Amino acid sequence: MTRTPLLPLDWEGGRVWIKAECLQRGGSFKLRGAINRLLQLSEAERERGVVAFSSGNHAQGVALAARSLGIAATIVMPADAPAVKRDATLAAGAEIVAYDRETESREAIGARLAAEKGAVLVPSFDDVDVIEGQGSVGVEIRAQLGMAADKVLVPCGGGGLSAGIALALPEAEIVTVEPEGWDDMARSLEAGEPVPVREPAPPTRCDALQTKLVSPLTLGALAEAHARGLWVSEPEIERAIAFAARHLRIVAEPGGAVALAALLAGKAGPVSERTVVVVSGGNVDPALYAGILAAQAADARRGG
Amino acid sequence: MTRTPLLPLDWEGGRVWIKAECLQRGGSFKLRGAINRLLQLSEAERERGVVAFSSGNHAQGVALAARSLGIAATIVMPADAPAVKRDATLAAGAEIVAYDRETESREAIGARLAAEKGAVLVPSFDDVDVIEGQGSVGVEIRAQLGMAADKVLVPCGGGGLSAGIALALPEAEIVTVEPEGWDDMARSLEAGEPVPVREPAPPTRCDALQTKLVSPLTLGALAEAHARGLWVSEPEIERAIAFAARHLRIVAEPGGAVALAALLAGKAGPVSERTVVVVSGGNVDPALYAGILAAQAADARRGG
Repeated sequence: MTRTPLLPLDWEGGRVWIKAECLQRGGSFKLRGAINRLLQLSEAERERGVVAFSSGNHAQGVALAARSLGIAATIVMPADAPAVKRDATLAAGAEIVAYDRETESREAIGARLAAEKGAVLVPSFDDVDVIEGQGSVGVEIRAQLGMAADKVLVPCGGGGLSAGIALALPEAEIVTVEPEGWDDMARSLEAGEPVPVREPAPPTRCDALQTKLVSPLTLGALAEAHARGLWVSEPEIERAIAFAARHLRIVAEPGGAVALAALLAGKAGPVSERTVVVVSGGNVDPALYAGILAAQAADARRGG
Repeated sequence: MTRTPLLPLDWEGGRVWIKAECLQRGGSFKLRGAINRLLQLSEAERERGVVAFSSGNHAQGVALAARSLGIAATIVMPADAPAVKRDATLAAGAEIVAYDRETESREAIGARLAAEKGAVLVPSFDDVDVIEGQGSVGVEIRAQLGMAADKVLVPCGGGGLSAGIALALPEAEIVTVEPEGWDDMARSLEAGEPVPVREPAPPTRCDALQTKLVSPLTLGALAEAHARGLWVSEPEIERAIAFAARHLRIVAEPGGAVALAALLAGKAGPVSERTVVVVSGGNVDPALYAGILAAQAADARRGG
């Protein structure tokens, strides 16, 4: 596991901090939760292997964690997952079972495989050990900041990372950020109970954040912490991706850039030099990434 | 100053380490040498300000270091310097004096400005304090690796970074890497004395490495360390830029990517988990960067 850097960003005459979790092994924070979960397995469970379903980042996290512990991993992945994520999962030594996102249930397939092999299913967020593992991001933030954070902006899919950070940094205001139309965590926090995404949910580049229902576990931890939720638009996300490349020299994937997008769009409210923005992943299809950067560079040229 | 991360890279069944100095404040290692030099100034010298000439990264390093110490900075910069570097230098509060790279001597302009203002000239590499400051990269590598490095591949312009690392890590083999046709350090190390670039030098994207003559100071330190030099082609550099984005999630500028390019091209010789590759900077024009990534993504698609 890499202790990812906390990078300073000059902002509005002051400074905020970027937790660059895209620099984690496997390109996202997911390795943290996966390792913590796998470390809880008994010897017998290790031998039967693990199963996970994931659009990509959790897949890589589980595959890398399993390889490092000598455990076999099978990953259930949508057939339209980014090739960059599929290839990396294979490279980490996992077996992939593809499914159709529109017609099949990944939960059912994952459960069937787990039953067939006697393998343990590693959930991507609805699990105490996974949430605690993601919380190591918060532990590092506290150590690297050298003082209490006042606000942490976190990209949110199922809420594992946000909940983990909320548990690790109880003094901080936690702000979850989701793509437009996928703000089920924001609405669940407002409602005080899990509220699913409104169907049909709009298309989004944020393949890592396409969860349609949060879990009582992550929602509970975030509600307890009085977290609140924001959403950002696709153009705001694309601007954040280009900003991250130019001003931070890091590659952010769409889902990883949403919290930075909220900051740049002025949606984050007051910030300070104790504010942290998490960039949670950087696994983006190379052609898509080049296209976003080219369009943003052309926009900037026209604008100035 | 940021303690930049040492990122693991799976390589040929093992692992090497990437020192991601593109994540430094100002987007390159140059802040390190500039701060160390400015910290040597007397109170009277601080008041008269500093002058530097630079194609960009040293400019940003001096501007940021000067601002952090409350010192006025004037930067002599080629008129065709990347806008991304010029803008960042202005944003850091420095004054810029532009010159024509083909017809004017930046050394003469810098010296004249220094004389007029009584300001101290901060050299980009030919200075003991600057070299020692860059050497802090080596000090960090030693601490982060937790053991002695066996080989360090370093992008080389004037040789300040390479020489600083050689002084900090006397146990390591130092390999300087330069763009094709700009391998004056490699040839100087072979000759045992400064040998200029052969004119006309070919065009290169590596604006940060276009020095035509190394200094006796940097050459001396590297020769003492038995360093050797390599060169890489422009296509090799572009492949390394795309590789860095995809597999390391960092933005490397052309000059910052040459050492990684040497590794990828198989020019680095035997490597181990004690080998470190320095990515020295990430300040690249956004449109150029997008273009390189798009071409590389199209190549990869055709190739596989």
